[in-house]
Amino acid sequence: MSSNNPAPQHITDPLDPRLDDIRDLKTAEKTLVVAEGPLIVGRLVESRYPLRCLIGFQARLEQFLATHKVQAPVYAVTREVLAQVVGYDMHRGLLAVADRAGESSISQIVEESRTVVVLEGVGDHENIGAIFRNAAGMDVDAVLLGSGTADPLYRRSVRVSMGHVLRTPFAHLDGGFTTWQRSLDQLRESGYRLVALTPDPQAEHLADALVDDTGAPYEKVALLVGAEGPGLTEHAMRATDVRARIPMAAGTDSLNVATSAAIAFYERSRSLRD
Amino acid sequence: MSSNNPAPQHITDPLDPRLDDIRDLKTAEKTLVVAEGPLIVGRLVESRYPLRCLIGFQARLEQFLATHKVQAPVYAVTREVLAQVVGYDMHRGLLAVADRAGESSISQIVEESRTVVVLEGVGDHENIGAIFRNAAGMDVDAVLLGSGTADPLYRRSVRVSMGHVLRTPFAHLDGGFTTWQRSLDQLRESGYRLVALTPDPQAEHLADALVDDTGAPYEKVALLVGAEGPGLTEHAMRATDVRARIPMAAGTDSLNVATSAAIAFYERSRSLRD
Repeated sequence: MSSNNPAPQHITDPLDPRLDDIRDLKTAEKTLVVAEGPLIVGRLVESRYPLRCLIGFQARLEQFLATHKVQAPVYAVTREVLAQVVGYDMHRGLLAVADRAGESSISQIVEESRTVVVLEGVGDHENIGAIFRNAAGMDVDAVLLGSGTADPLYRRSVRVSMGHVLRTPFAHLDGGFTTWQRSLDQLRESGYRLVALTPDPQAEHLADALVDDTGAPYEKVALLVGAEGPGLTEHAMRATDVRARIPMAAGTDSLNVATSAAIAFYERSRSLRD
Repeated sequence: MSSNNPAPQHITDPLDPRLDDIRDLKTAEKTLVVAEGPLIVGRLVESRYPLRCLIGFQARLEQFLATHKVQAPVYAVTREVLAQVVGYDMHRGLLAVADRAGESSISQIVEESRTVVVLEGVGDHENIGAIFRNAAGMDVDAVLLGSGTADPLYRRSVRVSMGHVLRTPFAHLDGGFTTWQRSLDQLRESGYRLVALTPDPQAEHLADALVDDTGAPYEKVALLVGAEGPGLTEHAMRATDVRARIPMAAGTDSLNVATSAAIAFYERSRSLRD
């Protein structure tokens, strides 16, 4: 254990208020950021979110603290106590809690990114998490959130994202006095090609939509993805430059939204390779 | 309601043995094929699996029977009775049960397919279901199952696949007196290019692995996908023609297995487009 890390304080009373941050995790209010398991806890500790505490079994804490610098109280609990506090058996036995922090600046995202994904109506936490995981894996620089999109910092999103919601910049789009789609114009004015994903068979093949007439990739691309089922609103569609489709076999259903997005991320990365 | 369909028999006793097929669904033995909800029930009714019964709320049954031909007993139950039988509240109120049937013939699959996916060690029912859904959506003709692969006809696989496990041919590979990978040779001898997906940065880019030196797509392709984490066994890798990677950003995790497979299906379909 690094001598710079705080020594674990042993807590044996499940009602101890120092454990309030993780009480009844499944139903608690979602005002904090909670990470579970060594990989994701490590990413939270290294993130910009202000750490409140690290909680776990003694052995798991020692293992973690041997390789991580932690500037927050550390609480050691038994498996039984932890289960009573969080409300279920957590066999991995390592948690970290942080405060939320302000979102990334949209103008900074717009300026510094080469590829962004814009989500509209993606209300499912697992899909949001999967989109962040895939975005991080395939070099998408940031996630912009339109209306009706679930909270990326919700516990399940954090877990499914493998902690990438804590690393990939994101921000909510807001049109001020108009609709959020108005802010898409800002992207276009900043040089982005706006590409809307749709199952519409009339749309361009995704591969064609990401390159210009000479076959060269667009310098900056914003990929717009809508909810499974309804897809993007017509309002959002109209604000884009091109509608792109992933070709689907006859008589099948559209792909899951995170899967569609992953394919678009892959095609974008493919268009940029040397 | 079609006059050719059997009239619903009303059942009010949760212990009625005619409901045994759907008793304690979450813990019951998995010897039958169970479909839930109109879309998937429709696909089961139209599949090659011998239908045993259709069960649901009166209104849902009437709606379904108006557009489907059903040759099996139909049982109408209330929401309360259904919940007591299956063990949870099933608000969609429509179920169908079928017997299992023999798998598709491997030699027929090998002969008639242009693209197949071969799974090794994919033990998660949701991943199996998602792979079938994506395969159906992107023109993969069949799924071949190596060792350690979860049951495609398990209830959760059926649901996540949107019923495509009931339509897409699949079969277990078996090496007879040797290992299952031996049967990969049969694929090669039948003209398939065997492509192993791997996160190994030394592997070829997926896009290059699916076309020959002139850029032409291989006539027949078998895409091999292994479990998330360990990936394909070295044994399976060695039996293939080429190792293909989806390029990943530095410091990220490998993709979910169903997502990787979806990207490979997309790239295969892309290589075949005119």
